[in-house]
Amino acid sequence: MAPDPRFAVLFEPLRIGPVTAPNRFFQVPHCNGMGWRDPAMLAAMRAVKAEGGWGVVCTEEVEIHPSSDITPYVELRLWDERDLPALARVCDAIHAHGALAGIELCHNGLDAPNHWSREVPLAPSSLPVIAGIPPLQAAAMDRRDLADFRRWHRTAVRRALTAGFDLVYVYAGHGLSLLEHFLSRRFNARCDAYGGSLENRARLLVEVLEETRALCAGRAAVAVRLALREDLGTGSLEPAEVRELVSLLADRPDLFDFCLAGWDADSQSSRFAAEGFQEEALRGLRRLTPKPVVGVGRYTTPDAMLRIVQSGLVDFVGAARPSIADPFLPVKIREGRFEDIRECIGCNICVSGDFTVSPIRCTQNSSMGEEGRRGWHPERIRPKAREARVLVIGAGPAGLEAALWLGRRGYEVALAEARREAGGRVAREARLPGLAAWMRVRDWRLAQIRKLPQVALYLDSPLTAADALEFGAEAVMVATGARWRTDGIGRFHTSPLPLDPALLVLGPDALMDGNLPEAGPVVIYDDDHYYLGGVLAERLRLAGFTVHLVTPEPLVSAWTRLTLEQARIQRRLLELGVELHTSEAVVAGFADAVELACVFTGRRRSLACRALVPVTARAPEDRLYRDLLAAGAGRRDHPIGTLRLVGDARAPATIAHAVYAGRRAAEELHAPEPRRLVRALPRALPRRRGTGARPVGIGG
Amino acid sequence: MAPDPRFAVLFEPLRIGPVTAPNRFFQVPHCNGMGWRDPAMLAAMRAVKAEGGWGVVCTEEVEIHPSSDITPYVELRLWDERDLPALARVCDAIHAHGALAGIELCHNGLDAPNHWSREVPLAPSSLPVIAGIPPLQAAAMDRRDLADFRRWHRTAVRRALTAGFDLVYVYAGHGLSLLEHFLSRRFNARCDAYGGSLENRARLLVEVLEETRALCAGRAAVAVRLALREDLGTGSLEPAEVRELVSLLADRPDLFDFCLAGWDADSQSSRFAAEGFQEEALRGLRRLTPKPVVGVGRYTTPDAMLRIVQSGLVDFVGAARPSIADPFLPVKIREGRFEDIRECIGCNICVSGDFTVSPIRCTQNSSMGEEGRRGWHPERIRPKAREARVLVIGAGPAGLEAALWLGRRGYEVALAEARREAGGRVAREARLPGLAAWMRVRDWRLAQIRKLPQVALYLDSPLTAADALEFGAEAVMVATGARWRTDGIGRFHTSPLPLDPALLVLGPDALMDGNLPEAGPVVIYDDDHYYLGGVLAERLRLAGFTVHLVTPEPLVSAWTRLTLEQARIQRRLLELGVELHTSEAVVAGFADAVELACVFTGRRRSLACRALVPVTARAPEDRLYRDLLAAGAGRRDHPIGTLRLVGDARAPATIAHAVYAGRRAAEELHAPEPRRLVRALPRALPRRRGTGARPVGIGG
Repeated sequence: MAPDPRFAVLFEPLRIGPVTAPNRFFQVPHCNGMGWRDPAMLAAMRAVKAEGGWGVVCTEEVEIHPSSDITPYVELRLWDERDLPALARVCDAIHAHGALAGIELCHNGLDAPNHWSREVPLAPSSLPVIAGIPPLQAAAMDRRDLADFRRWHRTAVRRALTAGFDLVYVYAGHGLSLLEHFLSRRFNARCDAYGGSLENRARLLVEVLEETRALCAGRAAVAVRLALREDLGTGSLEPAEVRELVSLLADRPDLFDFCLAGWDADSQSSRFAAEGFQEEALRGLRRLTPKPVVGVGRYTTPDAMLRIVQSGLVDFVGAARPSIADPFLPVKIREGRFEDIRECIGCNICVSGDFTVSPIRCTQNSSMGEEGRRGWHPERIRPKAREARVLVIGAGPAGLEAALWLGRRGYEVALAEARREAGGRVAREARLPGLAAWMRVRDWRLAQIRKLPQVALYLDSPLTAADALEFGAEAVMVATGARWRTDGIGRFHTSPLPLDPALLVLGPDALMDGNLPEAGPVVIYDDDHYYLGGVLAERLRLAGFTVHLVTPEPLVSAWTRLTLEQARIQRRLLELGVELHTSEAVVAGFADAVELACVFTGRRRSLACRALVPVTARAPEDRLYRDLLAAGAGRRDHPIGTLRLVGDARAPATIAHAVYAGRRAAEELHAPEPRRLVRALPRALPRRRGTGARPVGIGG
Repeated sequence: MAPDPRFAVLFEPLRIGPVTAPNRFFQVPHCNGMGWRDPAMLAAMRAVKAEGGWGVVCTEEVEIHPSSDITPYVELRLWDERDLPALARVCDAIHAHGALAGIELCHNGLDAPNHWSREVPLAPSSLPVIAGIPPLQAAAMDRRDLADFRRWHRTAVRRALTAGFDLVYVYAGHGLSLLEHFLSRRFNARCDAYGGSLENRARLLVEVLEETRALCAGRAAVAVRLALREDLGTGSLEPAEVRELVSLLADRPDLFDFCLAGWDADSQSSRFAAEGFQEEALRGLRRLTPKPVVGVGRYTTPDAMLRIVQSGLVDFVGAARPSIADPFLPVKIREGRFEDIRECIGCNICVSGDFTVSPIRCTQNSSMGEEGRRGWHPERIRPKAREARVLVIGAGPAGLEAALWLGRRGYEVALAEARREAGGRVAREARLPGLAAWMRVRDWRLAQIRKLPQVALYLDSPLTAADALEFGAEAVMVATGARWRTDGIGRFHTSPLPLDPALLVLGPDALMDGNLPEAGPVVIYDDDHYYLGGVLAERLRLAGFTVHLVTPEPLVSAWTRLTLEQARIQRRLLELGVELHTSEAVVAGFADAVELACVFTGRRRSLACRALVPVTARAPEDRLYRDLLAAGAGRRDHPIGTLRLVGDARAPATIAHAVYAGRRAAEELHAPEPRRLVRALPRALPRRRGTGARPVGIGG
């Protein structure tokens, strides 16, 4: 089928040096928390991207040497030839679906603590290693080190070609790579030919680039990935220097891939940056080189993609997160199925997989990370085992996802929602400052469900156990969500806070329902540490209240370090004038004050307060489930043979967890015993035969 | 050889249920950062413990099910039978040296976020998951969950027996295990038969214990590991309840292993706790049960070990850290080689391996973690390849370690130290508050070197390059250390701070040399984040100064979270009256003040200051090395054919890194090309053959 003519330009092939990309959709390198530990899972994930129409699909960064060991984090490796099978597997998986396979070779330089390998970290200058503030400094590379590095890079290029890659990156981006550390005045204080002027600081990059080109000649294209600017202006390249550098490199690489440095600038969440947020930094660069250019900006809409290509900003639409949320985005544009596009909500939960060293997950795409080990697919699911009616109770993220995939399997599904509006927590949270894009979680699912005649949505339909028992479904999925507690129980306190009844206590649910206090000061007690405490502080401050945010953690919204948002959140709250009280817990509430305690010393003090908002933990809404269970549902001999508690109602967690739980409930209905997961396991270990003797005293 | 009769009691065998321990040295379970990822390395490490005379050698915790997945951390696993080869390898390695092998089965309950497995976390009550403040709550276990857990545990016990273990743990310690979460009023708010009274809260433990006993009957002993009390009194067991619980369990287990909860209480560093620090908590427990008891307390001295066994406090001397610092501690006591014991300094760098998910390392024992992959041994090293004179310059940790092992290899070694005292940084730092035990790093090495006639130590012997060239060694190891910078360069600033010359700037070296300011306030600017900034604040405050500690991190001594010390450090500094200014950097210095900037907003403010102590980064003392290099040393045709820069002089890091670098320099002199490291690699991946076709446009 020919593409929609309006978008035909996005489907024009384009040469990149000796290879040709089939279209303009370019999955730029992105981490995924699987890497060398889980290569089979990783290969399956990349394969699905290629299947979904991305013309170029790249690996994440690939460590080229043990002196670039970023343990505890897990990316791919090319430390030696033992890594080739994994790399080849990824490459082949991409090729099997007709995409070009790119590999991002990387030496992490000052960002590599080498905890596992115990090699000495390497950098342009003797400075402390960045990642994880370890008590280590890198060695300032001498001539011998520079020669070693170039040799390692050449060896890695040869191996990348052996593995079959079409596009080899020389990586100088994100603040994470040795070549960028050389480029940066912040990290390069050398007095030799590799420091000082931009030409000198670029010397190593140019040398490596030319050696890579020479090795790849005719067999693969060479990309260079450059950081456009640092977010905090800390001495990295200025915009003028970036232009100078691009002009200097000009036609040496076959492709330029531009990003922002560091990673938190390049992958900003929707709370802080809109689609296309990198366009200003990209402007004017493409005309400095005859070679094609790829850039990113969390593009999820076909019109914006078309615009940046037609306007000459880029030749390729780069994407990491949009390709995670919808691996089939190119296919859907091509087929004109625009409303089927599952747009990234920009929550950055995908990034947290890298930081927790666990397989990438996505709020929108429940199959992300599960393609290989569970056989889930972003577009398909195996048909139902047999006819059955399923009742899904609760149309929040878990219930919507369960109903959608049960419907796609062909089951007859009734989805009952107690409220007048679907979406559950998403519908309420998406109305808070900065979270509007999150409504896509609900809206995409509702739109997809509407296409399925076998799924019926009933709003304004609170059900009792008796209702559910009468309904006549043979399977019931209870996805009734959770409510925020108002008693202060969470991590710090596991028993209720002593609270004077005269103090107004407003839970997050009440606030989201529109109940604002009459007067401040308002104290938000955040013992949850994800986004909500900070967002509610913002909401209340914008409404004019004096707001204090109290948290036992040393940072506000501390867990958002794992979504790259923490520093931006803390800055925003400070700039809005929210008063922050970190490393303290609320330990009591009185009529017009709360008592705080220092988490280190227990030292107490009083803080004036007219309304307390505890953001601590949630209570699952599992009453209906327990009533059904008590009535015998879920037993084999009961008409409701399958009863399942799904999502926040079982264990309150992120929206991504709820969506995953909904998908899993749909996948596992009438499923055979789930196959054993592909496991991260070390190579087979022969049993080493000892003496077999029972222990005796040492020395007899 | 019969043991020294004074210590004979420590070498008496003792029955533990159906098995007999050959002596009273008991390596309790301890993590090691290798676990399921590096089982061959792990097995080699445990084997050395057994070889060194520990009568019982245990694994670390072993996750019994994917719902106990503590990714990103890596311990052992028994998720299914695919884990058996690794477990059997560890067990056999312990048996090969005549020790009993123990296995610590564990379900992490509320401490397991299940990031990799994506199972729902499980706990007595619905509370937020502890580890890493993830936005997840556990499900409150229902009857079905309880039955599942008991079944998983039984299956794990069967597998442990198959692997060959002699001692099976039922684990309820350290705040890390589900069974302890049930015991704890802090985490257990159940209203059923598993909550409320201690008997109820212990019900699951008793059930699991009895099931484990039944399965092990006659084949293996059953240990129960109990937490004695929580450090912060947060609702866990009170001492009276511990006694009640021990009486309740009485003779059900074959062995009691007592620890403190949490881990940071159980494994306190020497800065905060002395040898035997758990004795008060242990007192009186042994008489409540007829079964043998093991307890810990960082025992490194034979007299203290003898005392606690003879006094009836314990039957077995439990040890984790002392067995890491000296795996041959039992052998040395047995042979009366007391001065050879390499005593643990209590720095807890070993713990940081677990937190960085990297192989355990030890400041005192340079071979720790390297037994398997590099073939290093704590007591032995292969002899020299040939006769040679070696000059080691600098008798700090790296130089001492290099000289010691070069001497043990049989080389003729001259160790030249510029100062009048050996020890380098250790000699100076060990005189700071709380760090006295660190002097063992120097003193043990000096004592060992004194036994080697082929090693000569020259104090007060500063060398020039000319001196070194004249000396006539054919190998020179330069271990000249590093000096703290005084220009503010570190992580936050990579170019010098603007400092008014009228402001007194005292570097850490000057302070350690005894130069105190004349008057305060003193501002310590800590951009290093390990211990030194906090220790110097303590030192100056104890000397009566007004002290401000300014740090860009949100916590003081932030990296010491990885040595379990951070909360104690922050508490101590607050209680001493040190003023803490977190998330701020010093950005300028004036005659009587410094200017601070908020790291989030850049907002500036002034702070009165009469002396500034920057603790930021170090400058390697590599001038002598560079002079030698320039003179041609290190080239094959030069009389000094081997020239090596070792330790802080190459890349300033921890003392453990310096010791490791010294050992490595000794190991690698005249060594054949080092063998390829055993690698953490996934199972072999067959290359999946794709179409092999070059990419074409999707859909043609």
